Amino acid sequence: MERVDKRTTLIPSELGQLVRVARGDALADLVLRNSRLVNVYSGEIYPADVAIYNARVAAIGNDYQAQEEIDLKGSYLAPGLIDAHVHIESSMVGVRQYAQAVVPRGVTSVIADPHEITNVLGLDGIRYMFDQAKYGRLSMFVMVPSCVPATSMATAGALLEAKDIVALQNDPWVLGLAEMMNYPGVVNEDPGVLEKIESFRTRVLDGHAPALTGKALNAYLAAGIGSDHECTTIEEAREKLRLGAYILIREATNSHDLMNLLPLVTPDNARRICFCTDDRHPGDLLDEGSVDHLVRTAIQSGLDLVTAIRMATLNTAEWFRMYDRGGLRPGNRADLIAFDDPDEFRVRLVMRSGQVVAENGKMLPFDQPVRPTYLRGSMNVNWNSVDFTIPAEGRHAHVIGILPDQLLTENRVLEISSAAGVAMPDQERDIAKIAVIERHMASGRVGKGFVQGLGIRRGAIASTIAHDHHNLIVAGTDNISLTTAAGAVADMGGGLAVADGIRVLARLPLPVAGLMSTRPIAEVRKALDEVIAASRSLGSELHDPLMTLSFLALEVIPHLKLTDQGLVDVDEFRLVPLWAG
Amino acid sequence: MERVDKRTTLIPSELGQLVRVARGDALADLVLRNSRLVNVYSGEIYPADVAIYNARVAAIGNDYQAQEEIDLKGSYLAPGLIDAHVHIESSMVGVRQYAQAVVPRGVTSVIADPHEITNVLGLDGIRYMFDQAKYGRLSMFVMVPSCVPATSMATAGALLEAKDIVALQNDPWVLGLAEMMNYPGVVNEDPGVLEKIESFRTRVLDGHAPALTGKALNAYLAAGIGSDHECTTIEEAREKLRLGAYILIREATNSHDLMNLLPLVTPDNARRICFCTDDRHPGDLLDEGSVDHLVRTAIQSGLDLVTAIRMATLNTAEWFRMYDRGGLRPGNRADLIAFDDPDEFRVRLVMRSGQVVAENGKMLPFDQPVRPTYLRGSMNVNWNSVDFTIPAEGRHAHVIGILPDQLLTENRVLEISSAAGVAMPDQERDIAKIAVIERHMASGRVGKGFVQGLGIRRGAIASTIAHDHHNLIVAGTDNISLTTAAGAVADMGGGLAVADGIRVLARLPLPVAGLMSTRPIAEVRKALDEVIAASRSLGSELHDPLMTLSFLALEVIPHLKLTDQGLVDVDEFRLVPLWAG
Repeated sequence: MERVDKRTTLIPSELGQLVRVARGDALADLVLRNSRLVNVYSGEIYPADVAIYNARVAAIGNDYQAQEEIDLKGSYLAPGLIDAHVHIESSMVGVRQYAQAVVPRGVTSVIADPHEITNVLGLDGIRYMFDQAKYGRLSMFVMVPSCVPATSMATAGALLEAKDIVALQNDPWVLGLAEMMNYPGVVNEDPGVLEKIESFRTRVLDGHAPALTGKALNAYLAAGIGSDHECTTIEEAREKLRLGAYILIREATNSHDLMNLLPLVTPDNARRICFCTDDRHPGDLLDEGSVDHLVRTAIQSGLDLVTAIRMATLNTAEWFRMYDRGGLRPGNRADLIAFDDPDEFRVRLVMRSGQVVAENGKMLPFDQPVRPTYLRGSMNVNWNSVDFTIPAEGRHAHVIGILPDQLLTENRVLEISSAAGVAMPDQERDIAKIAVIERHMASGRVGKGFVQGLGIRRGAIASTIAHDHHNLIVAGTDNISLTTAAGAVADMGGGLAVADGIRVLARLPLPVAGLMSTRPIAEVRKALDEVIAASRSLGSELHDPLMTLSFLALEVIPHLKLTDQGLVDVDEFRLVPLWAG
Repeated sequence: MERVDKRTTLIPSELGQLVRVARGDALADLVLRNSRLVNVYSGEIYPADVAIYNARVAAIGNDYQAQEEIDLKGSYLAPGLIDAHVHIESSMVGVRQYAQAVVPRGVTSVIADPHEITNVLGLDGIRYMFDQAKYGRLSMFVMVPSCVPATSMATAGALLEAKDIVALQNDPWVLGLAEMMNYPGVVNEDPGVLEKIESFRTRVLDGHAPALTGKALNAYLAAGIGSDHECTTIEEAREKLRLGAYILIREATNSHDLMNLLPLVTPDNARRICFCTDDRHPGDLLDEGSVDHLVRTAIQSGLDLVTAIRMATLNTAEWFRMYDRGGLRPGNRADLIAFDDPDEFRVRLVMRSGQVVAENGKMLPFDQPVRPTYLRGSMNVNWNSVDFTIPAEGRHAHVIGILPDQLLTENRVLEISSAAGVAMPDQERDIAKIAVIERHMASGRVGKGFVQGLGIRRGAIASTIAHDHHNLIVAGTDNISLTTAAGAVADMGGGLAVADGIRVLARLPLPVAGLMSTRPIAEVRKALDEVIAASRSLGSELHDPLMTLSFLALEVIPHLKLTDQGLVDVDEFRLVPLWAG
């Protein structure tokens, strides 16, 4: 088909050409034929062809001609999936490697909250993530971290106030303010917290309010926050949904909420419900997937196909005010997925911005320009101040009590034995030493204490993933092992290590902020498996001792945690002495 | 209940106080008790109390205390209604008087397209509408008129290009670009039209594409337009909805689409469908209502209550990106309505921005400040050039053929008798003279011709409502009556008049742009009824001869129309000579 354009006065704009293709007077770049269109607008599935020009859908209908055709042979065709909330850092790889894992599964856009790297590197961390995403195959939108640091009881690598982040809202890739975890601050009108909210009041305000209910929940939402991804029970989700909050159902490595919340979904309320992954480790991403896993599980649990897909496309686009995606219609981004079996929901073809980017679960090769990236190292420890010795200043100490498979810990007061004035761990009672070494500003601060339930009978494990401040956390049975493990992590520029005496048993370098590798995700997964195996070889029977360790420093989850500043009684929300007398 | 606030360091912000009220630590201004909440988010109806602080909903739940309480005694409580698309000018009254008519019916927000006044007064017209709305009881949002003038084949009072309107998009009351009526311009890539669309590409782009289908429809939507309110058949609406357009179902004085389109609505697609009134005359507003009439009719036709209300609240708020209304949730505007009988749907209480503004169908008295308004007169005719004589330059003329109750006209070639070289109307064959007198820039242009089917046996009718350019249109049987009617209209500064010889039988002054009265709507309705009755006393059997007249000048509706520049063959989209030989 050749057409001569006689209207010589036209602006030769991309928009004009898109209109011309849709009108049928210019060849499309590509036509997808013989698809069964999953129409998220009308809720129907029916045969249709899709014509694409440049990065966009030009038209949906029969009889379009194109430079190139793809015969989908009856495959289902749906919009590209959108992950409503993800901390990419939890995959332990950078954006490029992360994209390699999720794009072939049909995820073409993610709403990222770079909360972890920002706690380490501040705004430089956000810029680094943008740099890595640029010219890639995944659209990474950013919600600006709202709580850096989480509290003043830990030392993070940055402190971001409203004035530090307000300008970011003008970035076209920024959608709003990320999960406001400081819900007590909102409910109790903390001026700095309200200032952040007011600064972003014209943008999307994401929530994080686990178990908040009643008047406190009303107060939290009245501030303008419009979503929550922390619901774990149907009652909790129903209350929030009734109060107008979007419910982002989460299926993370740490928190499995989908099956609990799926019965909430009805035809009457489904439009207000989305899917997200929050935190998924490399193994889960590789074995199960990303939001495709939620769509698949939902379908296999009986949710109808269109509703399940809407929860990872149109609904998410609506909540995040993304007007150029979330559904297949003329003018929208040509982000789309094809799959054959509506029960299996295995994506076999992925297009992003009009290009086929993955087929049969594999990314197609492409040249993402590698631009020089300037990211400083994140290990800044004053080793002269690090001493794992704990003087015995009492007989009883507050000990962090681990509960298997929970982020909650207990605040246990236990007798601690000592020798020559030095407090000692106790393998018999599974009490190990734990230390959090400040690594951002070489303050020399080291928080020290005891932990019960880690299961390590000898050696030590160390990590620079230590939520949310990500200082260097290490736990073990003796000072030599503690030093070896902590030293190995520091020597790698951050990461995970397991040591026994002076020997390093396994290590995973995470040189990017001490959180992420630059290696492919499959390699990272393998190294992580080795680290976990090594930590279990020390005696631990926990599912993932390193992950457990990484949450022992999170001073906002009850009941007792350790930061570089010392032990935190989360219920009382204050630093407390190690010794109970 | 008295509480002492011990946190003296707080910002004394409105937001902080809202949060405090929601938290239950400060008295609400008002609590609405014993309501049955129509929850547009969850799709449920259940008992709930609503606490209000200042202009906003603070909380929904029991046990809130307030300065004031209203016992709703089991009434249904729903969000205030939103009219998705209205030309307020069609009510023939200004915004203040219009609000008096619609607010007591539950309409708390309207999306106005001030297309008519803008065609007369340009940007001054939009500013005038804003001035009138200010400090009133109705939230009037504006979509910027996209097609002023409709074509270059008529002379309007203004010519607005992209550069003239682009700055308006930064006004907080402006939501986007109003119905793009120049759909041929979009489909055929008219540079000026695409420039307007590109200028507003980050805002809402409303559509107007009657009967557009297939590739042309794809082309129109690919340009970025996302809605349509011109659907008259279910097939048309379904095609547009499938292509991702919001469907704004219209029930206007001129176009009754609700019953045709209602069967389209399913639980799967209802979220993409809204209600609008487009153009409603005073009588219809007073007798039937505004969007409340659509909600009521839909319910009485079997649509469920929540869905019907969503189509006039949440759905509309979503399409127009109004994030502070459309549903009752903490933090949203306290715009709400109460009604007793879910079948009757008669609104008995209306709150807007937290204040009761109407009860039992009556507006409560309030003092809207009357500010001096500077609006120029809109009558600017060069009377020296006006001569209703039509020289007989042929035997056959193109005559506008009226089809009762349709905006479409026929292009009839009829023999015209003459006397002394002057072409004559013919009462026997119901052929009258018609003239369009340019009234904006005193150009002296007068378009003249003949019309068949108006039914006037003697006298003349005249109007400055003459879509869309709103020149002075007059039709009648003799030059004396034509002069009397046109002169009466001009003498009033615009309006409607009916004359018989030198006698004016009835008149309705519309001094605001020749479109709107400054009198209460009930008075206007009475005067309009008298004008219509007078026009029918001249012999016409049309339902409303003045309304028919006002569309005979609209050069974008097939097939033959008259502007100040002459006869327009709409199918050929060009000016044509009166005489056919």
